[in-house]
Amino acid sequence: MPIAETPLQLPVPDLPAGFRAAGIHAGLKRNPTREDVALFVSDRPATAAGVYTTNLVYAAPVAYDRERTPGEGFRVIVVNSGNANACTGPRGLADAEAMAAAAAHSVGAAASEVLVLSTGIIGEFLPMPTLLAGIGQAAELLSDDQRSLVLAARGMMTTDTRPKLCGSTFIAGDRSISITGVAKGAAMVGPRMATMLGIVLTDAPLAVDDGQRLLRQACEETFNCVSVDGHTSTNDTVLLLANAAAGGSCLEGHDLDEFGRLLTETCRTLAREIADDGEGATHVIRIDVTGAASRDAARQIARTVADSPLVKTAISGADPNWGRIVSAAGYAGVSFAADQLTLHVNGTLLFTAGAPVAFDAVAVSQSIRDNRETEIRLEVGDGPGTIRFYSSDLTAEYVHLNADYHT
Amino acid sequence: MPIAETPLQLPVPDLPAGFRAAGIHAGLKRNPTREDVALFVSDRPATAAGVYTTNLVYAAPVAYDRERTPGEGFRVIVVNSGNANACTGPRGLADAEAMAAAAAHSVGAAASEVLVLSTGIIGEFLPMPTLLAGIGQAAELLSDDQRSLVLAARGMMTTDTRPKLCGSTFIAGDRSISITGVAKGAAMVGPRMATMLGIVLTDAPLAVDDGQRLLRQACEETFNCVSVDGHTSTNDTVLLLANAAAGGSCLEGHDLDEFGRLLTETCRTLAREIADDGEGATHVIRIDVTGAASRDAARQIARTVADSPLVKTAISGADPNWGRIVSAAGYAGVSFAADQLTLHVNGTLLFTAGAPVAFDAVAVSQSIRDNRETEIRLEVGDGPGTIRFYSSDLTAEYVHLNADYHT
Repeated sequence: MPIAETPLQLPVPDLPAGFRAAGIHAGLKRNPTREDVALFVSDRPATAAGVYTTNLVYAAPVAYDRERTPGEGFRVIVVNSGNANACTGPRGLADAEAMAAAAAHSVGAAASEVLVLSTGIIGEFLPMPTLLAGIGQAAELLSDDQRSLVLAARGMMTTDTRPKLCGSTFIAGDRSISITGVAKGAAMVGPRMATMLGIVLTDAPLAVDDGQRLLRQACEETFNCVSVDGHTSTNDTVLLLANAAAGGSCLEGHDLDEFGRLLTETCRTLAREIADDGEGATHVIRIDVTGAASRDAARQIARTVADSPLVKTAISGADPNWGRIVSAAGYAGVSFAADQLTLHVNGTLLFTAGAPVAFDAVAVSQSIRDNRETEIRLEVGDGPGTIRFYSSDLTAEYVHLNADYHT
Repeated sequence: MPIAETPLQLPVPDLPAGFRAAGIHAGLKRNPTREDVALFVSDRPATAAGVYTTNLVYAAPVAYDRERTPGEGFRVIVVNSGNANACTGPRGLADAEAMAAAAAHSVGAAASEVLVLSTGIIGEFLPMPTLLAGIGQAAELLSDDQRSLVLAARGMMTTDTRPKLCGSTFIAGDRSISITGVAKGAAMVGPRMATMLGIVLTDAPLAVDDGQRLLRQACEETFNCVSVDGHTSTNDTVLLLANAAAGGSCLEGHDLDEFGRLLTETCRTLAREIADDGEGATHVIRIDVTGAASRDAARQIARTVADSPLVKTAISGADPNWGRIVSAAGYAGVSFAADQLTLHVNGTLLFTAGAPVAFDAVAVSQSIRDNRETEIRLEVGDGPGTIRFYSSDLTAEYVHLNADYHT
């Protein structure tokens, strides 16, 4: 799937073979129409890979999962939303352990086969009786149909306006292999993270080391290239479960490469969805940087442009204010030849060789207004470093949502 | 002057001996009540020091001044607002030279005695006939009175709501020495700058090297510790002119130390004013970080908290949402013991030893609402690194101002 054709409204995928899911309202969120507990269960042991927040202040479930992945023999991911179980000290860790034990009990697994995710308010203890009862209820509703998958995806949401799901299938020899991804995120989405909250399920047989390596690579150029507000969460986690239900021996060679490519596409689609669903966003901003000294340098330039409130407000105001974009690139802390800088916005050349270019500002403004996605293309030299980064614009609605949220 | 007592409404200072100033409306701004050209003139040659933006994309006047400072024999600073003369290529540099020549001619100086400042829109050429006529008009109005100083300070403003001035005087032996500072800035104010747009005038006799060293030190802990939106400008400049009108030989020893201390206080007062006048701001946020491994580490933590839109909106919403503050510290990219982290907001303990503390959220919220300044105090360990950083909150008004500005 070419990146440019990533659809805004994604079709709901199927679960890969051997997986079931469920999502229910347990009572962690006040609104009874909002799911807040989810289960993802494999009918056989799966290899698991995990990529986690780089925040020094990390949540109990991050500590719990990080200790256990990568590894083999996992069957369950239990998720709650509405409460992040972050900054909760030793009691928070005990609560994460109790969540795992309850999920294991409810599906007839061992506690060692369970991974745990939480998202929501920081600094409050989990309401354990409510949560444990909800896990038991969810287990009774586990199913392999699309509706259950959507409910499980909804059970991960906080201020997201829609669940984020995508899937793909490919043929490896005589096997059909599916990859299905689920993610959440609309704020506290920042670029220095290891990644965002996401789950990728596959029926591929996958060696533990391959899974971890491919997941890290995929996150590096997808979830790690998205920003809503630059604020790296305490809970960022992406988990990959590969249960081998497609049969045969572990993927290798060309099949493994193809798996890695589709895993990256899955993560990219979900990452773009997160930027598109950024709190209060009216535009998703795609920033392509080329010609940097390295990929890291390109990412740093893109991230700096993505996080500038002046760039973000210019886009929400449909203003082709290129001075804000090139000056943001200039303070990224990465060396480049400013007198070679070239900028296109939505395909129109605005700035080249360090000087402005005459352009039709009304037409560019109209194209920003008419399209959900704004394309910023920055050429900073002739180096090999290239990156694609997704961000969202900054609106008064973002401020209202975040000045009024909590306490 | 203790920092905590810095007044919100500053008294207008006098110019130091031997200086005159003027500010007029030349026509670069549409509103005829807004001054847009300013002159600061010494009646004798002064030593000059300068500190400039670290942005790779820097304006023509920055290139012009950086080449000439530190040095001796300067008499004039000419300023225009409404147009930054940035990203304007070779023609922009020629325009800066023409500005210097016109200012020199208008006051009977040589072009080599002039420094140039510009601020405003990026990427448009200066309207030279209008500007040069304005410089001539301003020269005819030069005076050493307070009104002229205020008009000159207004001539530097862009979206500032008020001019920013402060002054102090001290006795060095038998000499009375004055320091008078002027600054502007309300947006595109970012922390990785060398500093902001500011002018400090003094009648002290000052060796060139001492002036440059003391100005850099002062900027490091004042202008370099302020952020409105984290966006480092193309035009950041602070200039120091020392004309020795107080008489005697160059300051040294205790007198030089005292001068350096007051220079820093002058810059700190102006820096705090910039945060306080941040676009749309309803709060100035003071962030004190102590116990970091180094001052740079402390600054990096403070800057990350200062630039988080989630922290900024929490303060504008009067929400003591400490999870946003401690999680911002956690992604600053600086190592510290998260389980020793302690946070006070407006004097109330909210978080200690990695876990929440019971506190009166209603009272803390009320104290945020009742005070223009919110005090965030973060203890991150027992290292020697300490910093005080000023920021402003993020409001829907900031978004409106920046989504609707220009083109």
